[in-house]
Amino acid sequence: MWQHVIAQQETTLVNRTVFFVSDRTGITVEALGESLLTQFPEFEFNRHTIPFVSTPTAAEIAADRIRVAGRADGLPPLVFSTLTDEASQSIIASSSEFVFDLFGTFIGPLEHALGAASSHTAGRMHGMRDHAAYEKRMRALNFTLNHDDGLSPATFHEADVILVGVSRCGKTPTCVYLGMHYSIMAANYPLTEDDLDHPRLPEFFRANRAKTYGLTIAPEQLSRIRRERRAEGRYSTLAQCRAEVASAEAMFHNENLKFLDTSNVSIEEISATIVRDLGLH
Amino acid sequence: MWQHVIAQQETTLVNRTVFFVSDRTGITVEALGESLLTQFPEFEFNRHTIPFVSTPTAAEIAADRIRVAGRADGLPPLVFSTLTDEASQSIIASSSEFVFDLFGTFIGPLEHALGAASSHTAGRMHGMRDHAAYEKRMRALNFTLNHDDGLSPATFHEADVILVGVSRCGKTPTCVYLGMHYSIMAANYPLTEDDLDHPRLPEFFRANRAKTYGLTIAPEQLSRIRRERRAEGRYSTLAQCRAEVASAEAMFHNENLKFLDTSNVSIEEISATIVRDLGLH
Repeated sequence: MWQHVIAQQETTLVNRTVFFVSDRTGITVEALGESLLTQFPEFEFNRHTIPFVSTPTAAEIAADRIRVAGRADGLPPLVFSTLTDEASQSIIASSSEFVFDLFGTFIGPLEHALGAASSHTAGRMHGMRDHAAYEKRMRALNFTLNHDDGLSPATFHEADVILVGVSRCGKTPTCVYLGMHYSIMAANYPLTEDDLDHPRLPEFFRANRAKTYGLTIAPEQLSRIRRERRAEGRYSTLAQCRAEVASAEAMFHNENLKFLDTSNVSIEEISATIVRDLGLH
Repeated sequence: MWQHVIAQQETTLVNRTVFFVSDRTGITVEALGESLLTQFPEFEFNRHTIPFVSTPTAAEIAADRIRVAGRADGLPPLVFSTLTDEASQSIIASSSEFVFDLFGTFIGPLEHALGAASSHTAGRMHGMRDHAAYEKRMRALNFTLNHDDGLSPATFHEADVILVGVSRCGKTPTCVYLGMHYSIMAANYPLTEDDLDHPRLPEFFRANRAKTYGLTIAPEQLSRIRRERRAEGRYSTLAQCRAEVASAEAMFHNENLKFLDTSNVSIEEISATIVRDLGLH
């Protein structure tokens, strides 16, 4: 990764302007568009997201912005769109030579596969609330926030998963993502020096062992992260980080816990791995 | 929305099996696939996500699962995939008559648009850490968790946005989403009866008014949400909810604050709207 970044900096990157156009939040079109753009590392992309393009009028305004950028660049921008309204899509399609219709491209083939016409209603992903699903998600997120950093162990039995690991190895953001994205009730418990003196799970954990999952991290990275938070003292020294990580991993082995090294993995990947490993989806 | 659900329940839904196949987390393929499926409300889809299909061997295992499901159904499953490896994609492509290649479909046209060959490296969306971006995101999320529910107002000046609104109108999940997805430092402040007696922002807010954003909600929905949390007492009565919401909205008008009704809007949409309205992206 670092080598790659350095290599990029040594060559001259080619600039291109990119628009993500959506009739809702733009979150999905950004995600797929970005993953396509990573295939072209020699370019420097100037990105613009235009969300909530839900009427032909809004599409006209967006198309004008795209044309202005194209004239300024002297090159047609790349446009990734997910618009359900065909009239709006055709307005966007006229704004550049290079419009990628991530939604409409698949509607025809999908109609064929299902032997049914599409309803052509506004996209509902990230859209109007499904109240039951919304409340489940909010319950999960509230549970997660109330069971962060070893809080409320008395109700750990209600959790779907309990993450354990040393301080700053990624437990909290992973729990928040599990709650927010997967509606999973996720608790976490920090392994302190007291726990690590004796590399077994604390006694009160026994009953929850099957849903306990370990996180670990490279000591060098842990030390760097801890220095950001607290530069002085033993907490962030490499020796201390090495000792804590070694004890935590010994505990995971002793307890036969599944665990994951978070060092070069995004929060999304850590979460998806836990969901898969514990069969939670 | 409710009428739509009721109409669905009165008719017989047609069942189809759907697979989302990804070489990373599956988050993107699920999001775009789901938004395509919402166009066919007369179907009941049985969904399966297969993440981390990053080798031809993993693709063979996934393809077998898809074939087994197809034989059980007597109908080819729908398969949405985002695989960057062409060999793996062609294995998946052979597993069903209806495979939608959300990634590969656009690589050729994108190569044409950029006049460059794609690198064919594994998808990096939600992938390996970009350390600077990761740390910004973690700082934002930590800030958000440390500034929830009116905590630490002394450092509100460091926030990118401060959400205000009555208890249970959606401030906390929105702040968490803003931190997690957009790396925005989001604080929130609950409007209590004391604040609402006098429908102006508390004095200490003055300096932060430009980044303050209001959330409101239909009193009926607020009452329902509050009853889940605390069934008894004045807190969740419709009369109390009506009075609080009316005072909060009066304050938003008095202070000329931008605000949003969260009643039928997802957390993603609330967040994307705030980002757009405050120009934060």
